[in-house]
Amino acid sequence: MKPVRIGIAGLGTVGCGTVRVLERNGDEISRRAGRKIEVTRALVKDASRLRDCPLTGIELTTDSRDLIEDPEIDVIVELMGGDDAARDLVLKSIARGKHVVTANKALIAVHGNDIFENARQHGVMVAFEAAVAGGISIIKVIREGLSGNRVNRLAGIINGTSNFILTEMRVGGREFADVLSDAQRLGYAEADPAFDVGGIDAAHKLTILASIAFGIPLQFDKVYTEGISNIRPEDVEHAAQLGYRIKHLGIAARVEGGFELRVHPCLVPEKRLLANVDGVMNAILVEGDAVGPTLHYGAGAGAEPTASAVVADLVDVVRALTTDPENRVPHLAFQSGRLSDVPILPIAKIQSAYYLRLNALNRPGVLADITRILGNLDISIQAIQQKGNGDHEAVLPIIIVTQMTREENMDQALAQLGELQTVVGEIIRLRLENLEWD
Amino acid sequence: MKPVRIGIAGLGTVGCGTVRVLERNGDEISRRAGRKIEVTRALVKDASRLRDCPLTGIELTTDSRDLIEDPEIDVIVELMGGDDAARDLVLKSIARGKHVVTANKALIAVHGNDIFENARQHGVMVAFEAAVAGGISIIKVIREGLSGNRVNRLAGIINGTSNFILTEMRVGGREFADVLSDAQRLGYAEADPAFDVGGIDAAHKLTILASIAFGIPLQFDKVYTEGISNIRPEDVEHAAQLGYRIKHLGIAARVEGGFELRVHPCLVPEKRLLANVDGVMNAILVEGDAVGPTLHYGAGAGAEPTASAVVADLVDVVRALTTDPENRVPHLAFQSGRLSDVPILPIAKIQSAYYLRLNALNRPGVLADITRILGNLDISIQAIQQKGNGDHEAVLPIIIVTQMTREENMDQALAQLGELQTVVGEIIRLRLENLEWD
Repeated sequence: MKPVRIGIAGLGTVGCGTVRVLERNGDEISRRAGRKIEVTRALVKDASRLRDCPLTGIELTTDSRDLIEDPEIDVIVELMGGDDAARDLVLKSIARGKHVVTANKALIAVHGNDIFENARQHGVMVAFEAAVAGGISIIKVIREGLSGNRVNRLAGIINGTSNFILTEMRVGGREFADVLSDAQRLGYAEADPAFDVGGIDAAHKLTILASIAFGIPLQFDKVYTEGISNIRPEDVEHAAQLGYRIKHLGIAARVEGGFELRVHPCLVPEKRLLANVDGVMNAILVEGDAVGPTLHYGAGAGAEPTASAVVADLVDVVRALTTDPENRVPHLAFQSGRLSDVPILPIAKIQSAYYLRLNALNRPGVLADITRILGNLDISIQAIQQKGNGDHEAVLPIIIVTQMTREENMDQALAQLGELQTVVGEIIRLRLENLEWD
Repeated sequence: MKPVRIGIAGLGTVGCGTVRVLERNGDEISRRAGRKIEVTRALVKDASRLRDCPLTGIELTTDSRDLIEDPEIDVIVELMGGDDAARDLVLKSIARGKHVVTANKALIAVHGNDIFENARQHGVMVAFEAAVAGGISIIKVIREGLSGNRVNRLAGIINGTSNFILTEMRVGGREFADVLSDAQRLGYAEADPAFDVGGIDAAHKLTILASIAFGIPLQFDKVYTEGISNIRPEDVEHAAQLGYRIKHLGIAARVEGGFELRVHPCLVPEKRLLANVDGVMNAILVEGDAVGPTLHYGAGAGAEPTASAVVADLVDVVRALTTDPENRVPHLAFQSGRLSDVPILPIAKIQSAYYLRLNALNRPGVLADITRILGNLDISIQAIQQKGNGDHEAVLPIIIVTQMTREENMDQALAQLGELQTVVGEIIRLRLENLEWD
């Protein structure tokens, strides 16, 4: 059978990784796919730049039309990143009847509904395993492996940069800003780290995961998103003393009346598997009603882990090239006309346990005031302790761990606690997931 | 589109679980698959028995021909277990052009090469995700998700019964036989536990995993197999003091000159993720050259976790029903004519680190004799300690942890150590995997 011909848009880290993997494992890949996969053209910004991959047989071009309009190219691999240019390339490729493989989470999370509708109309496949958690195959696991399940919830460490920073803060007792600049020097964080440490990148991924898990359209604008820049070494330390680690999680859950979609830092008991996922590694815990909890762990980024997912998608496309489009795996796991319109809940409606830290004057009745406020709002306390043995009227930290409550109750509690005359300065509030379902 | 019709052979635990999941999640499943999946017939031993699943619309029969010869049935789901009858049913179903889904690891590990060749000739699919580690989707992950990788090695906790027993021994400091009889009472172990605690079940699964990971034929008879019945509480305890846990692992590795395939108990550093997989849970660590290490965790057995895999296979079959057979996912991940004939190594040729425990007289020169024997065989010692402070000539235990060495060297060392006049009784030898690649 004649080889499948590929045009790659973007020969940066992931693009070069993909070319290297296709070259190095070419024999095994064609033994798996049944056909050879050949990269014949690549779209680049600067054709003269030196690159970390073999370029034999690959024609470089700076004009995207050379890829889109080449009738010999069967599949376009979009690895440019970014928004408008990538979207334009993908839509034009689809219109030309070309299959698309992409690693672009922002593109899928924000424009996916439109892109998949275009793909459906033109009978082509758009594969995006590389958009979430690199080579972990989490899209395939949820979309195909768990197809018999009603997925109830998932929680994941899906941003390697944030996980690296939190790990370093814990292990070294260091400040966020300090570790971040190290991470930038090591290449684990971008010069503009906002996408990663602000939680946007994780929110893009959670959007995609929730959609294929629950059978709902992509709804990036509905994801509650918090980053890790406010995490302080002292909270990492207190959490540790209580037996918890602080992780940055993406959480999606099916609850009464809708779905929760949220990205934020979170205390997790140290004995949980997710709590032990350190450094740049990713892991996603998924619970289906039949299978129970499953966990999927691996590198979430990097040239070759991402290339691993890109090539897996290419092999899937090659394996399916002769199938009629209606019988391929639906992009969002469910048939395109049968997505559910159950709403995403606002953050105020979610349920969570909480860790609170506040500073209060060492004065009789302080704990009574605090526990009364929480009790009146139906918030049960699991643990409360005032640290240190300061003098009367000294300012001492109080640590509180609550049972599950609704976020809007906790909002009210924080407002009331802030008005106490004995409470000094800001109150720290972190969510706490016991993850007893792993 | 008209429903896909299924005949289920066997309505025991997994059969009933499958019927329940198809019924309960029928709407979600058909939204995923694009067609309804209907169970129309079931083969049972006793049609009058009460069963733990809804039977509306399912015709029960005790004659397998009623399934095989029904022209309305598209897919046969084989959940009878066992050997000859299952094999007969599967081969006859294939000959009639029916697709097959099976959870039978023994059948695939022992007769898979023959079954897949028959399937190829008749253009049907045989799906077997449920044969390995229940609902974890490890077949799909390796066969499709890692298709861009050269898989280097994998290690897994793939027998829930053994893992449950080892966990209970560690947590409760209890004897193997004691925990086993508890496990039997709780239904975690069969009345005849040999398949599980003897390692046969894990060897069946490892056979399948190695084949799809490396692109080699199924070779069950080449797997080195050891069970857990010799594990003693005192070794669990010593291992713990050294920072290790004892796990029953299936290991497959690509090494110089061939592949290692082995199933045996093993010390694992307690900080590794696999060391923290407790109770009846399964987990498999897989290393690909592009993706690096990945870990996949979940329930490895039970009615609905297994049903989860059966239904996922059914959905795959439904999704692919209109594809021509040459372009489906190959059974063993690689095209059937292109399997590699690189040999499986005998156990003597594997490399491992070791934990040894022996009893020796407290006499000058004992440690010198032992270290000389190991040194002469090129075995480096990582740690050696004589426990206790007994009198001169008292019998005291000595614990040794070695660096990596070849198993045949260790065999020689054990023979020579056994001949020392100061060494009393049996020498305990356990392999030790640092799993530094997780």
